[in-house]
Amino acid sequence: MHELQWTPITLETGLRILDLIGVVAFAMSGALLGVRKRFDLFGVLVLGCVTAVGGGAIRDTLTGQTPPLFLRDETYLWAALIGSALAFAFGERLARFERTLSVFDTAGLALFAGSGAIGAINIGLGPLGVVFAGMLSGVGGGIIRDLIANEVPEIMYRRDQLYATAAAAGALTVWLLHAHATPFQSQFAGAAVVVALRWLSRRGWVKLPVRRLPGS
Amino acid sequence: MHELQWTPITLETGLRILDLIGVVAFAMSGALLGVRKRFDLFGVLVLGCVTAVGGGAIRDTLTGQTPPLFLRDETYLWAALIGSALAFAFGERLARFERTLSVFDTAGLALFAGSGAIGAINIGLGPLGVVFAGMLSGVGGGIIRDLIANEVPEIMYRRDQLYATAAAAGALTVWLLHAHATPFQSQFAGAAVVVALRWLSRRGWVKLPVRRLPGS
Amino acid sequence: MHELQWTPITLETGLRILDLIGVVAFAMSGALLGVRKRFDLFGVLVLGCVTAVGGGAIRDTLTGQTPPLFLRDETYLWAALIGSALAFAFGERLARFERTLSVFDTAGLALFAGSGAIGAINIGLGPLGVVFAGMLSGVGGGIIRDLIANEVPEIMYRRDQLYATAAAAGALTVWLLHAHATPFQSQFAGAAVVVALRWLSRRGWVKLPVRRLPGS
Repeated sequence: MHELQWTPITLETGLRILDLIGVVAFAMSGALLGVRKRFDLFGVLVLGCVTAVGGGAIRDTLTGQTPPLFLRDETYLWAALIGSALAFAFGERLARFERTLSVFDTAGLALFAGSGAIGAINIGLGPLGVVFAGMLSGVGGGIIRDLIANEVPEIMYRRDQLYATAAAAGALTVWLLHAHATPFQSQFAGAAVVVALRWLSRRGWVKLPVRRLPGS
Repeated sequence: MHELQWTPITLETGLRILDLIGVVAFAMSGALLGVRKRFDLFGVLVLGCVTAVGGGAIRDTLTGQTPPLFLRDETYLWAALIGSALAFAFGERLARFERTLSVFDTAGLALFAGSGAIGAINIGLGPLGVVFAGMLSGVGGGIIRDLIANEVPEIMYRRDQLYATAAAAGALTVWLLHAHATPFQSQFAGAAVVVALRWLSRRGWVKLPVRRLPGS
Repeated sequence: MHELQWTPITLETGLRILDLIGVVAFAMSGALLGVRKRFDLFGVLVLGCVTAVGGGAIRDTLTGQTPPLFLRDETYLWAALIGSALAFAFGERLARFERTLSVFDTAGLALFAGSGAIGAINIGLGPLGVVFAGMLSGVGGGIIRDLIANEVPEIMYRRDQLYATAAAAGALTVWLLHAHATPFQSQFAGAAVVVALRWLSRRGWVKLPVRRLPGS
């Protein structure tokens, strides 16, 4: 293998590994919610897989890449299936850790916000489009998970826990860096921003204003 | 008409008739739910039509066939409209039969799972992609119906009634047969598997495991 | 500028202005609902933007125009953002007027039903496809808004307030006129029909039948 080929292969592999980690993380978050909701085995697997591929499907639909990547490359569905099966098998142990669900959720959020932003940059969108597409890719899987599980999508009013805001900030980071760094570096930095904002908001150090209506 | 043209015409017509039966069946299931929910005439028609074309729209979006078939070929929308109008007109008589809704729902599920699987095979997806696309095509119309009617989508936890599992098994059947049989035969066999699994699970002979959490 | 260029420029500009008014109107309707639901600043902006671009995204996905217009042309996202920010800033004043939300909602409904119908005509759909695509473009943003805000989508059973019916009638108007008038004139007439039907139904002059089930 030539030295010249080294960098692009690493890059592509790096992005792909980040993507697959995001898929497994979201699959576990969806499957664990299914276990908690007493879904049957198949329901748990389906909720895990739909959560895992939802963000990527939104990203690919918005950027006109059809059929979506998770159908073109079966690795993604297998990763989602394995993540969901692990969560079903070890459900009670994972559930013992109070914040397990939240950690996997944040990982998926961070990685999909970045890959959505890079997809949007690749088709030439402007800054606002990149932020919007990245944010929707990040929060899409979780929204689909919550709608199917009939949970209220919490992302809109959990002002003590930045969620969509963190995804948007991560996507913005990717956009700001993309001219100066490799896609892998940009996505990694964007994911770090998402995780940092989520952590800061859990500690109560970052809050968003709420508009109060008269009499409320 | 030449003997040589006979087979392809029959095939295409057969698949199309199966598809249209699925559309009418799902339209009636959606419209009957609308009648039961006291929707007005137009709400009943819209819920019927959206339920009827939802599965096909998901299938066509996932396989990159845009605009979706139901918009390119108006027969589908007319079939959905007629099915919905029949359900509105004869609502109370259909509702007298206890399992009417369920029978139409199963028919739609069976036929769309098969046509989704065939669509996925046609664009070259692997086994897992075919099963996933077929299952989503089958359950998609019903999920959209339940979300709009503000019913909890039951497909995830009705362990006594295999639903998404049956759709996946039907799609898998189509994939297993597709190299050895015509598309019509494969889809018919897949639909039969769906109906058989639904029936077996209603009799209580097939159940899926549920993972219990400690303390639950 | 030549006289000959005058008409097409006016036309395109006119359609674009109608579209942008629809975007701002739906953004305000979504953002006001977010304010009322006590969402934080970012949640309000996201709900406003998703409501504003939801109808257009459905229109573009159904008619195979990907990536959707709101991503290709950033003006739309900026308009959605500004409309949402205005609603957040002046929330309590806008909320004082009892029907504010409803007025913006009707404006968005009217304008997107028309632009969805024109998009469907442009790709050669028949009358039923045009009505269906126009109706879904009109009601899509509001349905997404209500699902995310966890409100029951009211469009199905508010028989005292024609909503989806009005959107369908507006789209039908566009289809009936499109061979005899400019797109701008057709869309304007369609929007007028939507507003008129909404107004008539609020006054109690137009109602749709409901099917009663025995014993209910």
